[in-house]
Amino acid sequence: MARIAYVNGMYVPRMLAAVHIEDRGYNFADGIYEVVCIRNGKLVDEERHALRLERSLRELRIAPPMGRKALSLVMRELMRRNRVANGILYLQISRGVARREHAFPNPAVPSSLVMTISPMKLPTPESLRTGVSVITIPDIRWKRRDIKSVSLLPNILGKQQAKEAGAYEAWMVDEEGMVTEGTSSNAWIVTKAGALVTRKADEMILNGITRLAVLDAVAEGTLTFEERAFTVAEAREAREAFLTSTTSFVKPIVTLDGKPVGEGTVGPVVESLVRSYFRHIANQP
Amino acid sequence: MARIAYVNGMYVPRMLAAVHIEDRGYNFADGIYEVVCIRNGKLVDEERHALRLERSLRELRIAPPMGRKALSLVMRELMRRNRVANGILYLQISRGVARREHAFPNPAVPSSLVMTISPMKLPTPESLRTGVSVITIPDIRWKRRDIKSVSLLPNILGKQQAKEAGAYEAWMVDEEGMVTEGTSSNAWIVTKAGALVTRKADEMILNGITRLAVLDAVAEGTLTFEERAFTVAEAREAREAFLTSTTSFVKPIVTLDGKPVGEGTVGPVVESLVRSYFRHIANQP
Repeated sequence: MARIAYVNGMYVPRMLAAVHIEDRGYNFADGIYEVVCIRNGKLVDEERHALRLERSLRELRIAPPMGRKALSLVMRELMRRNRVANGILYLQISRGVARREHAFPNPAVPSSLVMTISPMKLPTPESLRTGVSVITIPDIRWKRRDIKSVSLLPNILGKQQAKEAGAYEAWMVDEEGMVTEGTSSNAWIVTKAGALVTRKADEMILNGITRLAVLDAVAEGTLTFEERAFTVAEAREAREAFLTSTTSFVKPIVTLDGKPVGEGTVGPVVESLVRSYFRHIANQP
Repeated sequence: MARIAYVNGMYVPRMLAAVHIEDRGYNFADGIYEVVCIRNGKLVDEERHALRLERSLRELRIAPPMGRKALSLVMRELMRRNRVANGILYLQISRGVARREHAFPNPAVPSSLVMTISPMKLPTPESLRTGVSVITIPDIRWKRRDIKSVSLLPNILGKQQAKEAGAYEAWMVDEEGMVTEGTSSNAWIVTKAGALVTRKADEMILNGITRLAVLDAVAEGTLTFEERAFTVAEAREAREAFLTSTTSFVKPIVTLDGKPVGEGTVGPVVESLVRSYFRHIANQP
């Protein structure tokens, strides 16, 4: 299979795809990224990813390397060259290459744009009938988690900690004891009283695109919903828990910190949200 | 002049020096770095930099790409090839190149090592007779600032804010109103009562190598010294203030948030510490 990456205007063999050692993404984590799901040859929720990408760039005052239309064309051309019908598209934009100095380059230099496409076995309704384990850890990240930056060191340390504990994900907990989100996913519970709860998207979490799709389904349904933070204790007493992300879709959680969530099985709320999400991704333009 | 970089075992023209787009330093800020001053052809405080480097790697469980002796030889060879007698050596080590997944690559892949040398006009006792301006900003960084990681996005945003305010540096302030450190330097004051104060090096700040050299000078002298955090209010009322870093040495601060520090001139304590520091760097093995 062709494995081609896009790097700053060129389509190159992925094996050889490189950026300069003084790219600010490498020296300073001075860049942002998006991961978009490709399903049946279509980009899932492309517009929402594009909007979030543009917001991340604005917040960091990084110039977009190209307009939205051109970016969309590059994404499609890369899909065509890699012949991937199911997988993920990764794209990263940094503030460009410049002599290493903390302040922004002045005059500005062109932003760097890197894009790859990888085939991936996507979740199916069947695979999502198996729940996963989650542990809780302190949230030690910086205070602008709403920006999808490549400043991911605490996230990778947290994910590694989860993996070593035999868990799929780690939920991070703020100084008030409230769950913020997973290291690469948003966190949801169905409380003892039956309310679906997820944290409000402010600077403390990333506003996940799958999160938004689930919120749409919730708005159309009859579930009791509360957009607020929840404690670890509340999560431990929850009937159901699940996580959402671009690559995990809507994933049931059956144990939290080693204890079963609810009956320790996949519950009816997450099952119905999984079905809604598959309807949503089946209806992409 | 030759401009040669070292990248993963090869000496290459710096213009062409590149790392793979899936280097974890680029995708995840999963790496650490050091900046060492080169003065009169010698590496200043090489051993302390090596010790800190090894500590950063240990804390992140990144395998050293080579032993200390070999690293020292590469540093010397790169100095020789670049013929730089005064400037800085930058080196960065990341967890290596692997398919993008948050958890550590398993099995582990070779760590990446990148090194550059840049000529720089170093501070002189004369140039350090001019003080600089500092502003204060909230410290929004992650909670492991003791690790010299490339996860520097909040630092670069803070430095840019300082620059736009016409200042040289920004001092970051924690949630209790205490100064942590500058975006790329440690923070010091001489209180109204005449005590030299700098924050204890725990997880909240980076333990600067220049900070350690100044502490040595303090230990040998007769100054009253307190290793503790200080508030912005205390800093505003201070007699003197200064910052330390590998490239700034011991730099007097004459205004803080637009108001003069003390008399708004360079004071006797910082003047004496500048002299001590030049004695220290003149005595490198």
